[in-house]
Amino acid sequence: MRTTVGIIGGGPAGLLLARLLHRTGIDCVVLEARNREYVEHRQRAGMLEQGTVDALREAGAAERLNAEGLVHQGIELRFDRERHHIDFPALTGGRTVTIYAQTEIVKDLVALQLADGPPLLFEAEALAILEPESASPVVRFLHEGREQTLTCDWVIGCDGFHGISRDTFPAASSLSYAHDYPYSWLGILADVAPSCEELIYARGESGFALHSMRSPHLSRLYLQVPNHTDPDDWPDDRIWDELAARFAVDADWALNRGPITAKSVTSMRSHVHEPMRHGRLLLAGDAAHIVPPTGAKGLNLAVSDVRVLARAFAELHRTGSEQLLDAYSEICLARVWQATRFSYDMTKMLHAQPDGDVFENRLQLTRLRRIAASRHAAAELAANYTGLPLMT
Amino acid sequence: MRTTVGIIGGGPAGLLLARLLHRTGIDCVVLEARNREYVEHRQRAGMLEQGTVDALREAGAAERLNAEGLVHQGIELRFDRERHHIDFPALTGGRTVTIYAQTEIVKDLVALQLADGPPLLFEAEALAILEPESASPVVRFLHEGREQTLTCDWVIGCDGFHGISRDTFPAASSLSYAHDYPYSWLGILADVAPSCEELIYARGESGFALHSMRSPHLSRLYLQVPNHTDPDDWPDDRIWDELAARFAVDADWALNRGPITAKSVTSMRSHVHEPMRHGRLLLAGDAAHIVPPTGAKGLNLAVSDVRVLARAFAELHRTGSEQLLDAYSEICLARVWQATRFSYDMTKMLHAQPDGDVFENRLQLTRLRRIAASRHAAAELAANYTGLPLMT
Repeated sequence: MRTTVGIIGGGPAGLLLARLLHRTGIDCVVLEARNREYVEHRQRAGMLEQGTVDALREAGAAERLNAEGLVHQGIELRFDRERHHIDFPALTGGRTVTIYAQTEIVKDLVALQLADGPPLLFEAEALAILEPESASPVVRFLHEGREQTLTCDWVIGCDGFHGISRDTFPAASSLSYAHDYPYSWLGILADVAPSCEELIYARGESGFALHSMRSPHLSRLYLQVPNHTDPDDWPDDRIWDELAARFAVDADWALNRGPITAKSVTSMRSHVHEPMRHGRLLLAGDAAHIVPPTGAKGLNLAVSDVRVLARAFAELHRTGSEQLLDAYSEICLARVWQATRFSYDMTKMLHAQPDGDVFENRLQLTRLRRIAASRHAAAELAANYTGLPLMT
Repeated sequence: MRTTVGIIGGGPAGLLLARLLHRTGIDCVVLEARNREYVEHRQRAGMLEQGTVDALREAGAAERLNAEGLVHQGIELRFDRERHHIDFPALTGGRTVTIYAQTEIVKDLVALQLADGPPLLFEAEALAILEPESASPVVRFLHEGREQTLTCDWVIGCDGFHGISRDTFPAASSLSYAHDYPYSWLGILADVAPSCEELIYARGESGFALHSMRSPHLSRLYLQVPNHTDPDDWPDDRIWDELAARFAVDADWALNRGPITAKSVTSMRSHVHEPMRHGRLLLAGDAAHIVPPTGAKGLNLAVSDVRVLARAFAELHRTGSEQLLDAYSEICLARVWQATRFSYDMTKMLHAQPDGDVFENRLQLTRLRRIAASRHAAAELAANYTGLPLMT
């Protein structure tokens, strides 16, 4: 098989890139290791920056997003048993965010691509990327029981943190920056109306809790738990009691409880791989960088990588210039590092130190108090949360 | 001996408090363990917030400060071999800072107090504070070869981090928050005109450097060095070469070199003691809290404690109300914690991680880049550097 742009990975990054390339008239193929059912049901984030919404609209993939996405004007911070609203439009000159689950984006993009898009192969497992420095790199992959090859002008690794693309980079010219956090998130989905209209980020006595939602009838909540926590140690009642304690305020407020339909524990890590390009192999999304979920930057970073790639390939297609492709890594990494910083700060600020370091705990509470007191501090949070400009 | 307010410690906190009380007509005595010569030559900070300048003026102790203090409109940040000016008046609505050495403040206050002030006893070493919970606490002290007592209505511990006042607090009702930093500062005084008009905070490849000044003819410079560094390992040439390397930029700029007249190594620590009051014993300044020198908050925090104390005693004197004295600890600690946060962040952001943690180093560089790119981030730095309002 031969194509212009070979895309490894059919998550939101790979699918969106394929859609944007297709609309520019650029040939591509997407190889996805899992089946459609699996891909469409991976539970992930659901907070979209304006730039992410714009990209989905540009890709013609926003029909359902426009109808069902929940526009949020801010978030609520809770600490010291008090509520503090961060008003995004007031602090950023009108910006908002949109709640729409990543799984839904994937469903929308898969449906479009299968209807009229470039080839999307499920259960096509990439095994190796050969000669990425050459003008014709080749992806070897396993599909329908046999090894096949995809010869490309360019290969885009959208295959996530555990994919093969990043490992294809020579160790001598790559750098990995990593930080592991000393806590995890226990996440639940519950068949109950959300207890709030906007997301609540709470720093309770015993740790962090996040109240989010997937729809007006479906709540998504998270609890800070120790690393290596077994979800079975958390029966439903214990989860609801702990959530209620961490969200507790001195005002009148109640947490809606309901049947829990999913329960899982996720560890938290920051990871940045530099550079994001080696020869004609370029990384996008989780393949190049991972952030902890606090601040919901993972999907948005993947989409901003894809926006730069789509523009770069459009420029190449139109003018033959590789200038933007040459700048790809530098452009993306500047924004990636800012989001890495923001995600790290949000994470540290909102979680209780499991080692009980009282200085660190008070320092982080002091940050929250400053955000509640200072317009500049609140505006910085709002600017980062709603998304920094693409080319900062 | 008997007095209304017994002040332990004749540093800037104790001396300024004595002066402010004296002008309100409140009786006090200052006990200082060292002699005048020693006290007047302790090298300390020299960056005064507007509120600190205001307090010295209010105390009638600003004649020389007004004449000789250098008003600074901002600071310079250096990193990535670039220069970034933080314009305080533009970012804070007109605020500035003043450079005037702490030793000069002490000289001014000592001279005033010896001329017409309340008693100031040098070489009067406080040994114990008896019955601080009672209405008449007693300070036992050693002076002129014999033990004496000072009976007070109130005792103010301005005796620094190593003084006896804090240790008089019962352990059961006190909390200490502490953080030690994995680097120290090698500081020098040099008989040479400063190479810059404003302070330069540089993050060089091999670590932090600060360019400051004491006068138009006297430079004060600092280098990040490992903890337990022996100043003798740093001959003058090595110091100048390392300073030049850390301040290096791609623009045309040169470091003035000259004879080094003093050289010392200081370790860095954050420490907050809570509460700041026990019975009729109240702590002020370093006795209650220590910050690392980055951001120059130590002296300014001491002065803001003293301003609250002076107001509280004036209120007590005028109306008999102890309301402000009762709120003293809470009012001061809110501001102390914000300054602790700011000093910690400035310190972490500007120093190289000695353990070589590449993630942490890039994260801190990313913070500096954000400050250079974002008006809100720069304004937050400027607001904290020039000093937060007293009652935040």
